[in-house]
Amino acid sequence: MSQPYDRVFNFSAGPSTLPVEVLEQAQKDFLNYQGAGMSVMEMSHRGGAYDKIAAKTEADLRALMGIPENYHVMFLQGGASLQFSMLPMSFLPEGRTADYVITGAWGKKALEGAQLVGKTHVPFDGKAGHYSDVPDLEGLTYTPDAAYLHFTSNETIQGVQFQSDPTLGAPTVCDMSSDILCRPVDVSKYAMIYAGAQKNMGPSGATLLILSDAFLQNAPESTHPMLDYRLQVANEARYNTPPTWCIYICGLVYAHLLERGGLEGVQKRNEEKAQLLYQAIDGSEGFYKGHAEKACRSTMNVTFTLPSEELTELFLKEAKGARLDGLKGHRSVGGCRASIYNAFPKEGCEVLAEFMVRFAQNHRLAGV
Amino acid sequence: MSQPYDRVFNFSAGPSTLPVEVLEQAQKDFLNYQGAGMSVMEMSHRGGAYDKIAAKTEADLRALMGIPENYHVMFLQGGASLQFSMLPMSFLPEGRTADYVITGAWGKKALEGAQLVGKTHVPFDGKAGHYSDVPDLEGLTYTPDAAYLHFTSNETIQGVQFQSDPTLGAPTVCDMSSDILCRPVDVSKYAMIYAGAQKNMGPSGATLLILSDAFLQNAPESTHPMLDYRLQVANEARYNTPPTWCIYICGLVYAHLLERGGLEGVQKRNEEKAQLLYQAIDGSEGFYKGHAEKACRSTMNVTFTLPSEELTELFLKEAKGARLDGLKGHRSVGGCRASIYNAFPKEGCEVLAEFMVRFAQNHRLAGV
Repeated sequence: MSQPYDRVFNFSAGPSTLPVEVLEQAQKDFLNYQGAGMSVMEMSHRGGAYDKIAAKTEADLRALMGIPENYHVMFLQGGASLQFSMLPMSFLPEGRTADYVITGAWGKKALEGAQLVGKTHVPFDGKAGHYSDVPDLEGLTYTPDAAYLHFTSNETIQGVQFQSDPTLGAPTVCDMSSDILCRPVDVSKYAMIYAGAQKNMGPSGATLLILSDAFLQNAPESTHPMLDYRLQVANEARYNTPPTWCIYICGLVYAHLLERGGLEGVQKRNEEKAQLLYQAIDGSEGFYKGHAEKACRSTMNVTFTLPSEELTELFLKEAKGARLDGLKGHRSVGGCRASIYNAFPKEGCEVLAEFMVRFAQNHRLAGV
Repeated sequence: MSQPYDRVFNFSAGPSTLPVEVLEQAQKDFLNYQGAGMSVMEMSHRGGAYDKIAAKTEADLRALMGIPENYHVMFLQGGASLQFSMLPMSFLPEGRTADYVITGAWGKKALEGAQLVGKTHVPFDGKAGHYSDVPDLEGLTYTPDAAYLHFTSNETIQGVQFQSDPTLGAPTVCDMSSDILCRPVDVSKYAMIYAGAQKNMGPSGATLLILSDAFLQNAPESTHPMLDYRLQVANEARYNTPPTWCIYICGLVYAHLLERGGLEGVQKRNEEKAQLLYQAIDGSEGFYKGHAEKACRSTMNVTFTLPSEELTELFLKEAKGARLDGLKGHRSVGGCRASIYNAFPKEGCEVLAEFMVRFAQNHRLAGV
């Protein structure tokens, strides 16, 4: 089956597939953005043309996610990994405790950042179950008067995902790097949401921050400028030169999602796409084993194993030959991972599901 | 005079003009990079296709600058501004002093980062002369056993530039954000060179680090991962997802410069370009006043003032009408600034020089 521009089905965990329509638009405007006489990459970040791009990007994201007015929106650099440090540096004062719910590899890294700064408590760690499950967040026991509670809405490596927004007693911070915009979110439940751009939004190099003004008031007055949320907010995240190209592409993605009707439709499409793959797993009579428990299966990262290393190798090789690219699982989980973010086409899930069924039939019949 | 793709002459101080040939190449490969079946923006940063891009980018830069093998090359996020903090956090231990030579706005910001960390000494500060001059670096008095000496090779806002690489007694760190690759540099004179990409290299969002291995050994063992030079070196700057698109464009720029014969030719072209504008200033019988002293005039940022605010406004307005864009000076210096980085075409300098001569004639004759 031939894709436009002879593209492959790209199951990469991130950076990952972008909407073809967005790429076409950016390509068209590449050397001269809508009459500005230059590429977006060449624009001053303090000039009128870029101002308009930045303002529309923020307005479209606010519309898409229903972000309340008392929340700041900005793009910083350094990825979610820099947030693992910046967050506790600013919001975990001496004498207080931050609670981290650990459902996979990224939550653990976030915790390690906080441990370098101050006191932490872990109400849940899914390690014993190889991070195949997520807890009921509202049923956990937290530190009274915790500085904040942190969790990871979707664990990219393990493929486990929380299914709804929790209502918790302390300021709630969520790393949504790998599932932001995959469904409607009630932003008002969170003190801070952060997300690297490179899965559901755009190229790598920009990190989205959605930060309640009330929570921001807990940050200390002066730290290093690039690590200072207050300073970044005061400068509208243009204290220094922002990653303008990345932000521009994110903006095109937001506009594209709005044109297609917003996040409810996105959620429906994501569920349909994931369902195709989980059905192939569940219908395989044990040939494929899903890593995640059914109740917390991710619509973004579908993780599964095959009966042997040899079959996994063969599966990946034949898949690549069929232009199904990037299916190798993370070394810590093994097996395969199909990352099917918002922009990944449903057709690609159909092709992979058929491929999985056929592969299982061939190799079960062969008695391997 | 019509530019290809109806582009303007873009004098922006950064982000700034990129070579048209580079933009054309990236546009051509935009939806399917050389048969990979995806855009560079969509590639896994751990996959084979991106590996090749990253390796060629580094190899071409090493060839272009003659970077010795005992230097590490990496791209980080956060801009030069994050380096203002990371550098002292890692290399200014308690009880030691770092020396900062201040020749303009960026050197001052670098100093402020170090002052948040430890003891500093300022062997030269050009403030009294409004940062119109640079000192003889080899003639200054430094702290004995300084942790490092820091200077800014070109001050973007003031338009003053050091003309050669100094030989100094302590590890020398240089912020080359606004003139890297403008001429050959003897890398072995430096312990560390850093530069934001968005002037002479590529889009904003990537910061080049060239770091001697000997200097790296002075860094402490463990800090926050994203602020830890050792960890970044050990992970080849892929501890987390690097800004892959920005790095790719930088790589195209390096290849383009190599194809054109390397940095000696670049220097010659830059001097010719700058000369056109400085001649227009010097030949104007005082109508235009250059901000920088002649001996330290920048080939990258040509700063000048006009006789009045009104004439400056009119100059900028008429220039913009003639498709000469981005000439407004920084508010701290006033007047005009023509940023003419490597990729800025000589033809644009000719057009501006003619425009300046004509404007001066009209307004001197009018007796304004």
